[in-house]
Amino acid sequence: MTDETAPLRPEARSPRGFIDRRARDLVAERQILTAVSAVYERYGFEALDTGAFEYADALGKFLPDADRPNEGVFALQDDDEQWMALRYDLTAPLARFAAQNWETLPKPFRRYAFGPVWRNEKPGPGRFREFTQCDADTVGSARPEADAEIIAMAAEGLAAAGLPAGSAVIRINNRKLLNGLLATAGVSDERQKLGVLRAVDKLDRLGPDGVRLLLGEGRKDESGAFTKGAGLNAAVAEAVLAFTAAGGGDRAGVLARLADIIGGSAEGDAGLAELAAIDGALKSLGVAEDQAVFDPAVVRGLEYYTGAVFEAELLLETTDEKGQPVRFGSIGGGGRYDDLVARFTGQPVPATGFSFGVSRLAAALRAAGRDLAAETRGPVVVIVFSQDDMAHYFAAAAELRAVGLAAEVYLGSSGMKAQMKYADRRRAPAAVILGGDEIAAGTVTIKDLDLGRELAAGISDNSQWREQRPGQINCPRSELVATVAKIVRGV
Amino acid sequence: MTDETAPLRPEARSPRGFIDRRARDLVAERQILTAVSAVYERYGFEALDTGAFEYADALGKFLPDADRPNEGVFALQDDDEQWMALRYDLTAPLARFAAQNWETLPKPFRRYAFGPVWRNEKPGPGRFREFTQCDADTVGSARPEADAEIIAMAAEGLAAAGLPAGSAVIRINNRKLLNGLLATAGVSDERQKLGVLRAVDKLDRLGPDGVRLLLGEGRKDESGAFTKGAGLNAAVAEAVLAFTAAGGGDRAGVLARLADIIGGSAEGDAGLAELAAIDGALKSLGVAEDQAVFDPAVVRGLEYYTGAVFEAELLLETTDEKGQPVRFGSIGGGGRYDDLVARFTGQPVPATGFSFGVSRLAAALRAAGRDLAAETRGPVVVIVFSQDDMAHYFAAAAELRAVGLAAEVYLGSSGMKAQMKYADRRRAPAAVILGGDEIAAGTVTIKDLDLGRELAAGISDNSQWREQRPGQINCPRSELVATVAKIVRGV
Repeated sequence: MTDETAPLRPEARSPRGFIDRRARDLVAERQILTAVSAVYERYGFEALDTGAFEYADALGKFLPDADRPNEGVFALQDDDEQWMALRYDLTAPLARFAAQNWETLPKPFRRYAFGPVWRNEKPGPGRFREFTQCDADTVGSARPEADAEIIAMAAEGLAAAGLPAGSAVIRINNRKLLNGLLATAGVSDERQKLGVLRAVDKLDRLGPDGVRLLLGEGRKDESGAFTKGAGLNAAVAEAVLAFTAAGGGDRAGVLARLADIIGGSAEGDAGLAELAAIDGALKSLGVAEDQAVFDPAVVRGLEYYTGAVFEAELLLETTDEKGQPVRFGSIGGGGRYDDLVARFTGQPVPATGFSFGVSRLAAALRAAGRDLAAETRGPVVVIVFSQDDMAHYFAAAAELRAVGLAAEVYLGSSGMKAQMKYADRRRAPAAVILGGDEIAAGTVTIKDLDLGRELAAGISDNSQWREQRPGQINCPRSELVATVAKIVRGV
Repeated sequence: MTDETAPLRPEARSPRGFIDRRARDLVAERQILTAVSAVYERYGFEALDTGAFEYADALGKFLPDADRPNEGVFALQDDDEQWMALRYDLTAPLARFAAQNWETLPKPFRRYAFGPVWRNEKPGPGRFREFTQCDADTVGSARPEADAEIIAMAAEGLAAAGLPAGSAVIRINNRKLLNGLLATAGVSDERQKLGVLRAVDKLDRLGPDGVRLLLGEGRKDESGAFTKGAGLNAAVAEAVLAFTAAGGGDRAGVLARLADIIGGSAEGDAGLAELAAIDGALKSLGVAEDQAVFDPAVVRGLEYYTGAVFEAELLLETTDEKGQPVRFGSIGGGGRYDDLVARFTGQPVPATGFSFGVSRLAAALRAAGRDLAAETRGPVVVIVFSQDDMAHYFAAAAELRAVGLAAEVYLGSSGMKAQMKYADRRRAPAAVILGGDEIAAGTVTIKDLDLGRELAAGISDNSQWREQRPGQINCPRSELVATVAKIVRGV
């Protein structure tokens, strides 16, 4: 930078799909994580934090859109030539950890975790390449009660985070049911079964008629593009559609209808028995019928689920940017994945868990009118007039902090007017004025900034404003803390 | 996995230099972050979270060991060919954020942040490639009071985290002092000045005699390897050594000694004036002489510091793995970096901040006998005897959780003995036994596991043990919660 030409300066911008989050968002997300962690710990789940990187082979390829190697993840080669990648979820690292430490872990091993995950995808509006997930999993229990407990914890966690009662529901299904139905119908090809899952997963968007086409020969969309179907014959496709429509009402009623549709195949019966056990445990755990329902239309995109699957859905209708009503939809999900640990060890280790996106839940809370961060306030600002009086300003701020009030001395170089504007922008509840007059008189002037704004709105005459000085209090210096505390805390 | 040969299984292991952290460590680190965040917010600092990645040009190259491109960081090329890298600290992303949003930020902008940072270095014992930092910075204030406030916050943060009074000290220096001394001596070459800094930085390890060699022609170490020196003549080298030895005693005394050594050069005088202002503000902020001292031997490795530098040091002597006494040393540091934002904007923006490694502070707390996680307990474990009685077990666990006690129903498939062992390994305070007899009689048996261990240690006779059943209480089922609460909480 010593030569005469202008130095080449980097542009100040974040990489695409990565965002900076300010206090408002962070306060909400930290409150969620604190509340949910407390619930998970009360259920006996212990915290675990794995590193950001895993070896690529340990991560596996379970992302729905990841058909090509390294697609969907951020991968790089270590200096010993091994490929490592940033985790895309918290389940794959847990499977690796459990496999690595299986001999020495207390079993079943129950852990919760939260932290960033990374997806190397095309970013878009509201679609980021880094986001925070929060998971709870039980590894080493094949009991359906372990699924039920995860569901109960999820429901309690959502409530603890602030979702009003009745605003969310957890929908539960079991992959063994559809597998059983297809086995009875003679469909055993894994690729064809995957096609059926993918077709059913589009029920929300396409409705039964669209899904019927995808279960059969295929479907041409509005643009004319053709999606090849799963190739079921018409009778089997109708059976699948009837199966997906068997939800509604209480859990026992759905079970009875499903028994009629599925009954007979070994895998279907196993799925029904698991759901019955889950129902029983949910009752013991006090999970109401409207908090957790059986819904055969639930699929979950990830391929690694082997039994029960669950999805938490926000029921409130919200509006999009254009004011149109939209369903908010899924705020989390999970299920049983009995083969993930076996990828490493060769030994089957049953496991089940639930995961939610923290920003997504924060958005759901805002949609439900529970904006945790709306009331975030800045510090009390002590105005600076003279370098000579710095000790007075610092002493005032320190006294306020000593009783737990956030306070700061303005440390920029601007005058009074800019300092008041700064206090406003920080959403300061009050400004403390210790001018030469106040210091000489042993007093302090305190501006109640909320009250000031309120009163000022009702005063049209500028000279009247100057006279009344709305929201401004002059008191003995010794009453500083009590006066500010009354403004900030209302007592 | 359908063919006959054994499938190729990935090995379950973490990449080198990345570790899994269990509840014990996480509890301690979260308590630190919660306590320190509360202090920073009380000083008016707001939370900020930037993404893990920055464009490589935005990060810059400020790591002490990073002489080659992309050395020291984890970098990869995005699909638009731009290089991005994981952040190696929280300061570079703050500089980028401040430059990007300078027009709209309240100024001075004060933020705190914590989160993982990544260094692509050779891992070693206790040396990881991912660790958590916690930073507080003021951007946009050139006032020495801003440095003083950062120092006061650091001291208060360390105390809030649990460090006992008197166990740590913050050492403060100002780079302008040494620059002034060297200017007076006619040393103006930047590379030579950097060599002097690096030599002084080794005082701890080599002592004055070793540093004298490095300030001069160079030094041959025990292995015979030669390190080229800064090339100062003997008189200037002695002046530098006398400067670094001018610490000790109260801040005013050090300032007076430094004035004698440095006085005269414009830059040295500016440094002295800044330290004097810092001293005044520290007094107003109530920072005692033994909490923050002036020490001209403090250097800080990073090149971007432009003025005040500070280092927090744990004073306790601890022992290494071999039981040898060792100085614990630095637990954090910081300083003023007035040019980092200007890298982007070309406009000078003064800034100052402090950073500490969270695991490092947790280790310091353990060394100081404040092991935050030592008392971490597992949940109360409800023993499972029969599938038929699951509803009883779940109801008991739910009742305990309803009063805030952590409790779980054992969901593995092992018998009573293994379940008791599981409870032990989870560090459960109590086990709840609802066998068929208890359920029929409307009672419950509760094992106080701590008391049981204690009593069992004093009983040598096995039959006596069976008779007394140490730590075991049978009570009416209705008294379950009260009895367990008394064991867990002592009331």
